[in-house]
Amino acid sequence: MARPVITFITDFGPDSAAAICRGVMLDIARDAQVIDISHSVRKFAIRDAAYLLWCSVPWMPVGVHVAVVDPGVGTERLPIAIRAGRGDTLIGPDNGILVPAAERLGGIVEARAIENPDLLLPTTTSTFHGRDIFAPAAAHIALGVPFASVGPALDPTGLRRLPFPEPAVAAGHVRTAVVYIDSFGNLRLAGGPDDLAAALGPLEPGRLVRITFEADERHPAVSEMAPWSRTFGQVGHGRALLYEDSFGRLAYADNHGNVAERLAIVVDRPVRIEPG
Amino acid sequence: MARPVITFITDFGPDSAAAICRGVMLDIARDAQVIDISHSVRKFAIRDAAYLLWCSVPWMPVGVHVAVVDPGVGTERLPIAIRAGRGDTLIGPDNGILVPAAERLGGIVEARAIENPDLLLPTTTSTFHGRDIFAPAAAHIALGVPFASVGPALDPTGLRRLPFPEPAVAAGHVRTAVVYIDSFGNLRLAGGPDDLAAALGPLEPGRLVRITFEADERHPAVSEMAPWSRTFGQVGHGRALLYEDSFGRLAYADNHGNVAERLAIVVDRPVRIEPG
Amino acid sequence: MARPVITFITDFGPDSAAAICRGVMLDIARDAQVIDISHSVRKFAIRDAAYLLWCSVPWMPVGVHVAVVDPGVGTERLPIAIRAGRGDTLIGPDNGILVPAAERLGGIVEARAIENPDLLLPTTTSTFHGRDIFAPAAAHIALGVPFASVGPALDPTGLRRLPFPEPAVAAGHVRTAVVYIDSFGNLRLAGGPDDLAAALGPLEPGRLVRITFEADERHPAVSEMAPWSRTFGQVGHGRALLYEDSFGRLAYADNHGNVAERLAIVVDRPVRIEPG
Repeated sequence: MARPVITFITDFGPDSAAAICRGVMLDIARDAQVIDISHSVRKFAIRDAAYLLWCSVPWMPVGVHVAVVDPGVGTERLPIAIRAGRGDTLIGPDNGILVPAAERLGGIVEARAIENPDLLLPTTTSTFHGRDIFAPAAAHIALGVPFASVGPALDPTGLRRLPFPEPAVAAGHVRTAVVYIDSFGNLRLAGGPDDLAAALGPLEPGRLVRITFEADERHPAVSEMAPWSRTFGQVGHGRALLYEDSFGRLAYADNHGNVAERLAIVVDRPVRIEPG
Repeated sequence: MARPVITFITDFGPDSAAAICRGVMLDIARDAQVIDISHSVRKFAIRDAAYLLWCSVPWMPVGVHVAVVDPGVGTERLPIAIRAGRGDTLIGPDNGILVPAAERLGGIVEARAIENPDLLLPTTTSTFHGRDIFAPAAAHIALGVPFASVGPALDPTGLRRLPFPEPAVAAGHVRTAVVYIDSFGNLRLAGGPDDLAAALGPLEPGRLVRITFEADERHPAVSEMAPWSRTFGQVGHGRALLYEDSFGRLAYADNHGNVAERLAIVVDRPVRIEPG
Repeated sequence: MARPVITFITDFGPDSAAAICRGVMLDIARDAQVIDISHSVRKFAIRDAAYLLWCSVPWMPVGVHVAVVDPGVGTERLPIAIRAGRGDTLIGPDNGILVPAAERLGGIVEARAIENPDLLLPTTTSTFHGRDIFAPAAAHIALGVPFASVGPALDPTGLRRLPFPEPAVAAGHVRTAVVYIDSFGNLRLAGGPDDLAAALGPLEPGRLVRITFEADERHPAVSEMAPWSRTFGQVGHGRALLYEDSFGRLAYADNHGNVAERLAIVVDRPVRIEPG
């Protein structure tokens, strides 16, 4: 039998918390391959983690995916497990962190509250469900515990969902927003090349577009021209480009630079794209 | 046979040093599960690493635990191995980093200087004992080398120990101090809820206490009120709470915030807790 | 058969990109031991990664080594695989990142462009060859795919090479430069103790030398005296030392300090060492 895979994403940072969860997982499932997706998610940024998990799961082996950004730990929000169409199980708090990844993996087949005490540590604290609930449940499920034994079934339509920006296509422009800013400072935007082509017509590499970061409460509008490009090296060092990122979405970057820092962009900033 | 587990904590940071040690371990014990606890310990902060290791080991599988924050590398301080009551082996320099974890794992059963050249790399430098001594010794021990072969026995009472803050309970107040500041900015304090209850009487969720960060050479005293709480979500965003952390100790935090930054707290700051 | 080893170094940072590559590797080679060397290489710093890989490979098990700092992704630069004398395979872009490590591992035996579609993901984007080309090719090679099947042979002398600083030995002084600055702020210099001894005569621990960071466009010259030392603890806290680092090269450090910060040193700063 192939070794079970458990992926793991949190905002726990560089302390020992993520390692403690790995210890719990491997004490139960010694042979597992644990793949740390990231433990440097911005503190409390549930949507950042949901986005990164959504990005990651199509390239992960079928397995158990644990996501813990959980400011509501110890309150009445439920610990949940979701069975997805591809055969994966997603584990985490019911705060929306799991749903985009589950939809990417063939949709929610079944959802359950994690309640079976056999799947948990003997003592459950009110501040560290990663260690006490999510890690041991993930390891037991990775070993093949029947999904029905996890706990009572939940109505999938009742699970919490997070608001994500959506693109709005109009004649002559697309309105979108920054969904995520990666560690290169590249801006991951809502929508894909099809949305842009629907509004602006065919996208030829090198075609100039105008990109406007609209004013918000703290920032005035900023507008600049940049080419639609296939890859970074097609513009000079420090020059901006609009491109299709490796997940099929629109993105805006400075080649050999950090556009988020250059323009002081933060997540959710509204963006307008029109012909150059 | 279950795969051997080696846990690993250092202040080596994001360079390749920790990976080089993992390479040495896996070249000897190819089947091991190496669990990185953290390699982002504050540089030279032996006590931070000792604290994180103390936090972690109860949740780790029985195995070999390697800790290297080692500003004395290459001086006369000894490389040591400790056998603990639970059956684990701890490996690192004799600077106090291992002792709290060993006591947590059932106490020191046996201690030895690491001297057997068969357990070391052929060449031992004077600046990287993690690679040359601790990693290969850990891997050989994980594979089952008899503990007596490690090197000469040491008197456990002669091992270096680190000073840790201790709580002082008086009628009407507890004096404690900040032991560790985690990546959320939460303050981990000396002492537990029993100490607090001994001084202040029964702790009901929501009961207000006064917490005073006493003046030190660089900071004036700061005092504020906060509730004793079961979990973060019981106070509003940005509000402080005093709580029992997931390791059974007192802790002070801002919900959805970073209290260490807000109040400019550093490790060892003395703290006084009294009725609100 | 021993578990195959794949080592992995990138500048991908704390997002999910490195994990996605690990997912691809383990989906193909479920039993592999993936050793992350670092994913915190300075963005776009090909030479930093080449240096860290050069440092690391002698202590890694024989295996496949993947290095991706790749600002030219999607341009005409080739994805390549190098077979080294020790039996390892190195995988990455043809931008010089692999060559120093290959030379450290017994030299380049054979080099090929990675072109065989059976070794790649079905879809290859123009911005994420780590996921689409390097990770799957590495996993297939780790499983034993014949090297000749990777793609067409390349002339090893035609591979891109990076300029590294070299030491210049003269009567009475050595001119060198900062090759890399580690996370302790220690300055890794070009050249070794033999170069220094050739210029200055025998190196006895405690012998004082004068070290001068020469002026460059942005920094005036800085000069100070420091002892040649065997290890950090031989000088006081905050005092500088010149020493042979654990890779056999010259290095300059502050004991319990960060000399790169203290003197505002950046990579490639020229350095002159003469008798004290």
